[in-house]
Amino acid sequence: MHTETLSIGSELTAGSTVDTNASWLSKQLAKLGLMVSRHTILPDELPPLVAFIQSLKPRAGDEGALLLITGGLGPTLDDVTREAVAQAMGRQLAENAESRAAIEEIFRRRSWPMAASNLRQAQLPQGAEALPNDRGTAPGFYITDGHLHVFSMPGVPNEMKAMFQLQLEGRLQQLVPAHGVVLERTLHTFGQGESSVGQTIAEFMAPGLNPSVGTTVSNGMVSVRLRARGGNQHQAERLLDETSSAIRAAIGDIYIGADSADLPHVVGRLLSDRQETLAVAESCTGGLIAKMLTDLPGASQYFIEGLVTYANEAKMARLEVPAEVLAAHGAVSREVAGHMAETLRRQAGTSYALSTTGIAGPTGGTAEKPVGLVYIGLADAHSVQVIKPVMPGDREHIRIRSSLAALNLLRLTMMGRRG
Amino acid sequence: MHTETLSIGSELTAGSTVDTNASWLSKQLAKLGLMVSRHTILPDELPPLVAFIQSLKPRAGDEGALLLITGGLGPTLDDVTREAVAQAMGRQLAENAESRAAIEEIFRRRSWPMAASNLRQAQLPQGAEALPNDRGTAPGFYITDGHLHVFSMPGVPNEMKAMFQLQLEGRLQQLVPAHGVVLERTLHTFGQGESSVGQTIAEFMAPGLNPSVGTTVSNGMVSVRLRARGGNQHQAERLLDETSSAIRAAIGDIYIGADSADLPHVVGRLLSDRQETLAVAESCTGGLIAKMLTDLPGASQYFIEGLVTYANEAKMARLEVPAEVLAAHGAVSREVAGHMAETLRRQAGTSYALSTTGIAGPTGGTAEKPVGLVYIGLADAHSVQVIKPVMPGDREHIRIRSSLAALNLLRLTMMGRRG
Repeated sequence: MHTETLSIGSELTAGSTVDTNASWLSKQLAKLGLMVSRHTILPDELPPLVAFIQSLKPRAGDEGALLLITGGLGPTLDDVTREAVAQAMGRQLAENAESRAAIEEIFRRRSWPMAASNLRQAQLPQGAEALPNDRGTAPGFYITDGHLHVFSMPGVPNEMKAMFQLQLEGRLQQLVPAHGVVLERTLHTFGQGESSVGQTIAEFMAPGLNPSVGTTVSNGMVSVRLRARGGNQHQAERLLDETSSAIRAAIGDIYIGADSADLPHVVGRLLSDRQETLAVAESCTGGLIAKMLTDLPGASQYFIEGLVTYANEAKMARLEVPAEVLAAHGAVSREVAGHMAETLRRQAGTSYALSTTGIAGPTGGTAEKPVGLVYIGLADAHSVQVIKPVMPGDREHIRIRSSLAALNLLRLTMMGRRG
Repeated sequence: MHTETLSIGSELTAGSTVDTNASWLSKQLAKLGLMVSRHTILPDELPPLVAFIQSLKPRAGDEGALLLITGGLGPTLDDVTREAVAQAMGRQLAENAESRAAIEEIFRRRSWPMAASNLRQAQLPQGAEALPNDRGTAPGFYITDGHLHVFSMPGVPNEMKAMFQLQLEGRLQQLVPAHGVVLERTLHTFGQGESSVGQTIAEFMAPGLNPSVGTTVSNGMVSVRLRARGGNQHQAERLLDETSSAIRAAIGDIYIGADSADLPHVVGRLLSDRQETLAVAESCTGGLIAKMLTDLPGASQYFIEGLVTYANEAKMARLEVPAEVLAAHGAVSREVAGHMAETLRRQAGTSYALSTTGIAGPTGGTAEKPVGLVYIGLADAHSVQVIKPVMPGDREHIRIRSSLAALNLLRLTMMGRRG
């Protein structure tokens, strides 16, 4: 069944608010085996809404088309979704007795005075079925026109989500012939660019395969997204498992983990599995590594402490970096990164200590030490290693990538691949 | 000029990623007097992309139509934006020599091996003008077909934003006849809920006013958004100035700053203006305060060091918190927060030291000390104060709000309003 979403609101097309309803709905619909073909966002204006809804009818075909609308059901005059659907289907608006009673009941229960405008919310296109709203005053509705099925829900995310779960899910299950399940899995990698990852797994990315495979980049990690369609949950999962294994074999140790298992998660799990501990001394990353690690509940099991030794005095006082070393090599140097990691590990008594010192920019770079240069140190009981990547991008990007590179150095070392 | 955006990516229609590019573009275009009529999000699939782009031509009329595309310019086979635009306009793809040279130069500079697939990125529809990418390997392009103007940019937000500012803004200014300006300003507040702020400024929020005024909540801050339309830049700015002043008078000292002047910025500016310094000792916020402060270039002027004393041993070893105090009051206590701030300020020799210790959850709460309870300490040369807010929300929200509350305590103290 051809499926689209329509998010209505002038604040959305103006850019004041980011629409998150459509992407939430896509994920819910996938569980029902429905793949969303398009998200559209339109302002609260009658003519474009009517034209858009009408444009969907030809797509309905024999399989039918499904449109999920969010927004534009409020009591004020700028909310025109009810009118738009009615006009697009050549219907009139009529008061829905059930919805009127529900709205009056809400105001009675809260002892609020009811504005006459609230009764606009009980006006539905003729032939529509009202969908009760558990969390607010605006009822939704469900209406069909030939093979086109339209569900209209409020735009407030928590009202919309409750209505979807209580009112739509069951109806959609009946509507959609059981034609399988769509499942997704995301494999995170770190250490290679998108094109290089893409080349390694090119055979899996050919169009028309099941699972379909694509790559995305976000926050410095390249991720491989798999999307499988199967007759049932089990079948779709098996397809994902097979292709995931093949891709993991192809990409080797740049593979970090799947779905929620990003670098901080994986490093945290490795540490807690081995009952090892970590401390972090940060200069250019300024607390970001500590923040990433402590984003996770339970981090106190393995994360002992972090030092953000931003000023040179702090590097000397906290981490015994000798003034001569700072003078001879500069704060951004292999020597300082090594000192930071080694001293911290000894002081904190941890299994590992990571350190960073670099030039996050936008200023402070030189020909010899450009913006993006970062020294990352890792000390364990036996040795200290320092790597020296040069990160692309702006200050934010350099800090994120440096933090991930530090965690990845620890991950590889723990897995015995280096160090 | 009829203006639309098209965001391309299967991860967007699948709901794995929320598109924020379209809303960012809407805001930028408004400054140029362009009101966006529709956002569309489509997967990386050739036929629907070609059909959509072709459907825009009839809209172009005499005034012309403008389409801003983001995404689908990567090097891998699933990126089909170049092909889609070429097909929709009946053109062939051809290698753009400039773009090829730019891509080769990036790989040379970083000493990375270049995958052959990267050269796909230099293939542009015939007749297109290449738009250099300052932050990545994918060039964008600009192409016209009759009255339809299409700009294609990368989907990675920071690459897209840089390309818009460096390449599109100037071209769009020439393209669009000057027909008035829409300017926005955002006033940040901290310390009151959205409905309470809304009630205080209700008179400015009535519909139909210019500027229009709305409130949004993001990352724990309530912000008031003003949007003014004027015949020219100067007129729109005057309207913003007038209403901003009136709103600031109404809301008092919950006002933080405007636009980019959020709490970390404002605190950083206060410190650098007074040539004062700061150190931070974090437990539950785990480095987030240090991270927020060092997000800003130049933070080394006033931010000396941060300690993330996550484990009790770290609190004792680094900050001389007595074992008896920890035993008697627990790590989450007024006494520990006070010790942390006082000791750190003395050790670091800074004008101020902030501390946090709390229960970020999801577990670890008790009836007496619930999840969300946080003690925030602030030491200066004269005294130590500790506040004890209880933050709503999940772990992430509690950590963000606690960090902002700490910065706000410092702000108010520096402004002589407390302490």
